[in-house]
Parts: sequence; structure tokens; C-alpha cells
Amino acid sequence: MKTISENRCFGGVQGVYSHPSQATGTEMTFGLFLPEGAEEGPVPVLWYLSGLTCTHENAMTKAGAQAWAAEAGIALVFPDTSPRGEGVANDDAYDLGQGAGFYVNATQNPWAPHFRMWDYVTDELPSLLFGAFPLAEGAQAITGHSMGGHGALTIAMSFPGRFRSVSAFAPICNPTGSDWGRKQFSAYLGPDEAAWAAHDSSLLMKKYGFDGPMLIDQGTADQFIDLLKPEALASAMAERRQGGTLRMQKGYDHSYYFVQTFMPDHIAFHSEALRG
Amino acid sequence: MKTISENRCFGGVQGVYSHPSQATGTEMTFGLFLPEGAEEGPVPVLWYLSGLTCTHENAMTKAGAQAWAAEAGIALVFPDTSPRGEGVANDDAYDLGQGAGFYVNATQNPWAPHFRMWDYVTDELPSLLFGAFPLAEGAQAITGHSMGGHGALTIAMSFPGRFRSVSAFAPICNPTGSDWGRKQFSAYLGPDEAAWAAHDSSLLMKKYGFDGPMLIDQGTADQFIDLLKPEALASAMAERRQGGTLRMQKGYDHSYYFVQTFMPDHIAFHSEALRG
Repeated sequence: MKTISENRCFGGVQGVYSHPSQATGTEMTFGLFLPEGAEEGPVPVLWYLSGLTCTHENAMTKAGAQAWAAEAGIALVFPDTSPRGEGVANDDAYDLGQGAGFYVNATQNPWAPHFRMWDYVTDELPSLLFGAFPLAEGAQAITGHSMGGHGALTIAMSFPGRFRSVSAFAPICNPTGSDWGRKQFSAYLGPDEAAWAAHDSSLLMKKYGFDGPMLIDQGTADQFIDLLKPEALASAMAERRQGGTLRMQKGYDHSYYFVQTFMPDHIAFHSEALRG
Repeated sequence: MKTISENRCFGGVQGVYSHPSQATGTEMTFGLFLPEGAEEGPVPVLWYLSGLTCTHENAMTKAGAQAWAAEAGIALVFPDTSPRGEGVANDDAYDLGQGAGFYVNATQNPWAPHFRMWDYVTDELPSLLFGAFPLAEGAQAITGHSMGGHGALTIAMSFPGRFRSVSAFAPICNPTGSDWGRKQFSAYLGPDEAAWAAHDSSLLMKKYGFDGPMLIDQGTADQFIDLLKPEALASAMAERRQGGTLRMQKGYDHSYYFVQTFMPDHIAFHSEALRG
């Protein structure tokens, strides 16, 4: 593992690190914020999964999460959203290929060799992090924005017991029924839609739900809301009788201004679950 | 208007009054809590509509609202849920007839002569209250529980501009698709389902929405949740891009223990809208 940078930040350290990944077969970069208390022993961890076009860096610099995480004594992990580099397949569209891994393991070419973000985020990166940093494996929570909200929700429901709480900012809620999803799942997973269901949070909600608190924020003026389909998840949560809160935030769009506005609430929400 | 009782309560007065109603053709009773500041000038008002089997009294004694309303300087109105008395039609079932007015104007016999709770709550009682008590007509909000949540939501959406905010505890969300609704609308409104749509908050949400903040709490262990159909309203709110919060409260049932637990949040929510 290489240290790319470490900066003092709210009394803790915002680091950026890279490492060769077995899952993706590429060098992967991630951000990690460690709060002040981390020198004295393992701290709880909040995973933040980013959206389309993002690297590890966008949320790290624009989500305004470190201030509140520092106060709450929580670490933040910012993984990248796809493998990158020469020799890694790509597409001219912003929503397929590099920057658009969708948190799945691709089974179709040309994506299959490197686009294994599910394994990377759920298996390889956790092993690396809990081995190398003072992070409490028993106190994890997960959140994300847009495609990253999709990742957070699907991963949380697929690993019962791993995350104490899950939240999402404007998540892609029903990718099997949206152009943000159908296109990518066709490309990465192939035409058999049965394989897609494991990566659709509205379908997972109906089938499994999440055993812990859940918080979703969605802006009503989100320019991508027709692609996000919050109504599918809203309905599924209510049908499932899932404990959780869905907030339709009037006038907010899809940007990081929206994310940073409600970040204090999300950190407080996870902090309560992680400290409980 | 007759004063039935007045009790000092959190520095204000909890009163119970009755009056002959033109809308229902009966004597109607209501509760009104006036906070301490009311002597000095009109105070904001929060309407609380009650559920099946309730009179004006249940929420007044069991919802625990006065403590928070006193702190916030807000008046509370507790109307009855139906006309009552000899000569008023009734049914052996708890969910039809007296105690089960459903906040509609009945057009069918034997209900039509007296069961006009829509007119009573939206027209006659407001006129009487704003004429007789120091209440600010320009600062109204509305909430309710179960059948009363249905009433609060449908009334709020049917009188744009009248209520600054609306909330509900475990509302009947989709009566046109539930045994809590179809039975009563058949009886009160007749077989033409077109007349029912104006009294279904999920249908009104899709068509009109609400121009103000909205808060819904629903217990996940609510024994009546299959009749309440929160999924219909959840989906309609998200589809409409309605600003608002829906909280699925884990482990809570349909009782006043649930209502009183989240009452402080609802009063704070309305207080913000009423004072803004």
C-alpha cells in the first residue's frame, strides 16, 4: 500500500492511499479519514460510496463529512467507483465503464476482467483496511450518493449483520426499471435479468429488508429523480414494514450542495447506531 | 355554545365545549387547549383529528400533546369523530356510524341527515372557533391519528393555503383500496367510486400534493397496518416529488403509546411552520 497524501483535518488525518487490487487487477486508490481518537484504539467506520463520474476524491473534498465525523469520532472510507487506467475497458458515455462501476462484478466482456467493484468494496478493501488501520470491524455503517446510494443499500441488505445502519443520498433505487441501471446491468451482467435482481435495492427491500435503522434523503428538485425512482423504494420500505425514514427534501437537487446540507443528520444518525 | 369543563393545564386551559351544529343537526362537543399566551392575542392552532371509536376526549387525555403545545404557544382543537345521540343512525360495527364519521359528507341514507363531518370540521367548527376564541386563522396546521390522519391529509390537500403544515400518525392512506374505507364509503357515499376519490389521500397526493411541509409516522408493528396501506402514500409522495418525511417507526403499534412517543416531534414540526 502506498501513501499518496496525508493531511491534518479537524484534528484527525485525511489520507489517500493506493494499492494493487486482486479483485480488479488494477491499482486502486481510496480516501480514509481517521478522527483524532484513532491513535488510542479502533474507531467506528462509515463507508461512503460515490456516484457516477466520481473518484475517491469528490466526496472527500465536497461532501463536508469530516467536520461531523471528527466530532462523532467516526472514520470515513471513500473508495473509488471503478477500476481505472490503460488496459481497463471504457466507454464514451459518462455512465458506463470507468467512473461507473455500479458496485457489481461484471460477468460480460470487455468488462469482466476488471469491473469487480462488488468484491472490491465488500471483501478486499475491508480486509485491507481492518488489517492496516485502527478501525473497529464490529462497528461499521454505510452510506452513499446516487450510484453510491444504490451501492450502500444493496451491500447493506446483502450482508446482514455487517452494518449497524444504512443511509443514502438520492440513491438509484430501482436500477432494473431505470435507464440508470438497465443499460449498465445489460453491459456488465448480460441480458438475463434474473442476475440483476441482487443489485436492485427496491427488490432486495421487498425480499430481505435491513435489520437496523435506515435513512434516505431525496431532493424534490433533483434533475435525475425520474432515473432514481424513489417511489419504488418508498413503496417497498412501507410494504416490507421496514423501520426507516424517507425524507423528500423540498427544492434540493442532486448536487453535493444537497449532500453536504444533510450530511450532519446522516453522521448523527450513524453515530447513534455505531455508539449504541 | 356551552362550556362543559375548563381545567388549568400547563399554564393554559383545557376546555370542553358543546354547541348545536347546523352541519350535523346535532349537539356537537369539542376540546380546545389554549396555551398561556392566548390572553395576550391570537395564537396558532393545530387541529387534531381522532380515529375510529374516539370522541373529542381520547386524544385530549391520552395523546400527551398539551405539554408540548404549551411550550410552543400553540392551541389544540380536538373535534369529535361523528354526530351522536338518539335519532342519529348507527351500526353495530365499531367502524361504521357513530365514532366513525370518516370526515365525509354522507349522501346515502340512513347516514345523510347527520353524518356531515367534512362540513363540520372544515367549515362550521372553524367559523365558530375563530369567532369565539383568540385563535389566529392565518396560522393553522393539522394532524390526526388513523381515521383522523386520513381526515387531516385529505382536508389539508383539499384546502390549499389554509394549513401551513400537515402531519399524521398511522393514517388510513388509501381507503378506496382498503376495508377501512370501502365499507364506509359504500355506506356513506354510495356505490359510485368516483365520489370516493376526493377522500383518499394517496389519490389526492398524486393529483394535487400539499404545498407545505408534511410528516408521517407509522409504526412497523401496527396491528392495522394492512388496512392503513402506508405503501400507497409513500409511493404517491415520492412520485409526486412531494416535500415531506415518512418515518417507519420500528416496533411501534397503533396505540396512543405510539402517538404520544412522537407527539413532541409533530408539535415541533408544526411549530416551525406556524411560527415561520
